[in-house]
Amino acid sequence: MRYGRVKTFYWKNGSLYVLNQLLLPGRTAFVRCSTHKDVVKAIRDMIVRGAPAIGVVAAFGVALAAKRAGGKRGAALKKYMRSAIKSIAATRPTAVNLFWALDRMGRLADVRADAEPKRFYWILEKEALRILKEDVDANRKIGENGEKLIKRGSSVLTHCNAGALATAGYGTALGVIRSAHNKKKIRRVYVDETRPYLQGSRITAFELKKERIPYTLITDSMAGHLMKNGDIDAVIVGADRIAANGDVANKIGTYPLSILAKYHDIPFYVAAPVSTVDFKTGNGSRIRIEERSPEEVLRIGGVMIAPEGSAARHPGFDVTPAGNITAVITEKGVFKPARLKKLRGVK
Amino acid sequence: MRYGRVKTFYWKNGSLYVLNQLLLPGRTAFVRCSTHKDVVKAIRDMIVRGAPAIGVVAAFGVALAAKRAGGKRGAALKKYMRSAIKSIAATRPTAVNLFWALDRMGRLADVRADAEPKRFYWILEKEALRILKEDVDANRKIGENGEKLIKRGSSVLTHCNAGALATAGYGTALGVIRSAHNKKKIRRVYVDETRPYLQGSRITAFELKKERIPYTLITDSMAGHLMKNGDIDAVIVGADRIAANGDVANKIGTYPLSILAKYHDIPFYVAAPVSTVDFKTGNGSRIRIEERSPEEVLRIGGVMIAPEGSAARHPGFDVTPAGNITAVITEKGVFKPARLKKLRGVK
Repeated sequence: MRYGRVKTFYWKNGSLYVLNQLLLPGRTAFVRCSTHKDVVKAIRDMIVRGAPAIGVVAAFGVALAAKRAGGKRGAALKKYMRSAIKSIAATRPTAVNLFWALDRMGRLADVRADAEPKRFYWILEKEALRILKEDVDANRKIGENGEKLIKRGSSVLTHCNAGALATAGYGTALGVIRSAHNKKKIRRVYVDETRPYLQGSRITAFELKKERIPYTLITDSMAGHLMKNGDIDAVIVGADRIAANGDVANKIGTYPLSILAKYHDIPFYVAAPVSTVDFKTGNGSRIRIEERSPEEVLRIGGVMIAPEGSAARHPGFDVTPAGNITAVITEKGVFKPARLKKLRGVK
Repeated sequence: MRYGRVKTFYWKNGSLYVLNQLLLPGRTAFVRCSTHKDVVKAIRDMIVRGAPAIGVVAAFGVALAAKRAGGKRGAALKKYMRSAIKSIAATRPTAVNLFWALDRMGRLADVRADAEPKRFYWILEKEALRILKEDVDANRKIGENGEKLIKRGSSVLTHCNAGALATAGYGTALGVIRSAHNKKKIRRVYVDETRPYLQGSRITAFELKKERIPYTLITDSMAGHLMKNGDIDAVIVGADRIAANGDVANKIGTYPLSILAKYHDIPFYVAAPVSTVDFKTGNGSRIRIEERSPEEVLRIGGVMIAPEGSAARHPGFDVTPAGNITAVITEKGVFKPARLKKLRGVK
């Protein structure tokens, strides 16, 4: 399973092999997950990251739990599966695709808990593979829909990694860029390095290099200067969760970019599958923002960059208000954020 | 010569000892400069940085050139001194204090070029020491003037390092914070790490720790989120050059902070000595922005963080328009940026 020149994970002989994104760009090595606990570790430690990718990996985690259910059936199986799903759900709080995928797998497990054990596993494995395929298909469609918004000769800015490696393949924000590049519309991609995890310099640059799309790295603090100088024609980012009113939670640093784009009159696009829209959350203030370890701010690549004993904050995400977003690009079309409500109940 | 708990450099037995800020916070080691070429290297390689500090170090560079003038007098001495000054001026293009200090030293050297060699050196050494003292005095006064703007219980955000280590002592933006802290007005200082050089996490945190002022490090991308949550009551930064109309060139990342502060209705202060105001530059668009090596963006502490062959931009500074600045705090008082013109000709 490889989409484009980069693969996030693959399923083989009943194990999930996950690219260890912590080692990029220096090394490409896969971590084998043969139990749902391996999946918990892979998500929690950010071996795999990116909201859609986390969702798909979580689905395979549920399939792996089913594989190792030890012949349980009925009520005992339901209880065991719920407990496994709960442990996967506890890994990261912000990306809604995680809960969406677990919910879908969990409902199926509940309904089919009386199936013969081998068949039960086969059903859940098939569903995880379906979620994977759907994600890639959605991304391709997002790319097609979003490409139309990009003018010929555009330089676009992206933040973090919303590429093939944040999804099952192709990418959301980078999917749009990929599609626009195929139509020869992209002059250059400016890539925010995205501290503290450097997903931009480590992962997005890695993907763009593989795809031979011209890119230039900048620190997160440079976007304003470039916008002022007319170097950026559009901003495109992914999303970890979109509230019902169109507010978007995404990687820390997205919200200030939306303010800068507005100030400089530059369109600001969010690309995400419909599974990212959380209709149960009314607005962005209700989205729980993961507070990660301060160590990740105090160190780079293990090396301490601040005096011993320094305090640090590390909110992993921020919320961009719907009013700062020009449009949300989904597989079902392009929407003004306030119009996403129309999608409630669609699929 | 030590002001507060941190020293930037000291002059001893005719040599300048400069703290190697590239090694902070891990090591405190001083580099001895016994010729003006050593000073050129110290400024160019960012062993010393910060606009006021660069100005003072440059002045000692001129004194060191005088010391080693080999008995020249008159026209020959003038030519030699001008060439030395030219080489120091070529180190960094943006900070105006460098040119201000070299201009002052150069005019004196021209006027006194007929003096007996030992006396010529003595005159220039005395002038450099005077510039040093004036800088510390100006900073203390900036601190006093600025402290009045800070409300009790404030959490303030600063970017880069405009502290004792960016000056001859005490600091400009950190001088204001230091004075406000002495009056028990500071709840907490939020410190932008300031990529790519990490002057915030390496140097500002180092100073604040030594001074026992409570601080919290954040990545440059987190300021917007914190402002939205009401965590920041004021922003205070330094300046590398202020144009006659009040536009301010400062470390890359300052301009976006000014936009975020405006958006969130938070006061945005610039603290700088009058020597930072460049009355010959009408507005910010005329300030030359130093483009530094892309390597500094592609590596952290020598370790490559992006794929081999990646392109990167590295503008060292950006320009904040006067309209985004609540006030400029100088040793001569606090001014609306447009009112700085009044200072033309004041010393």
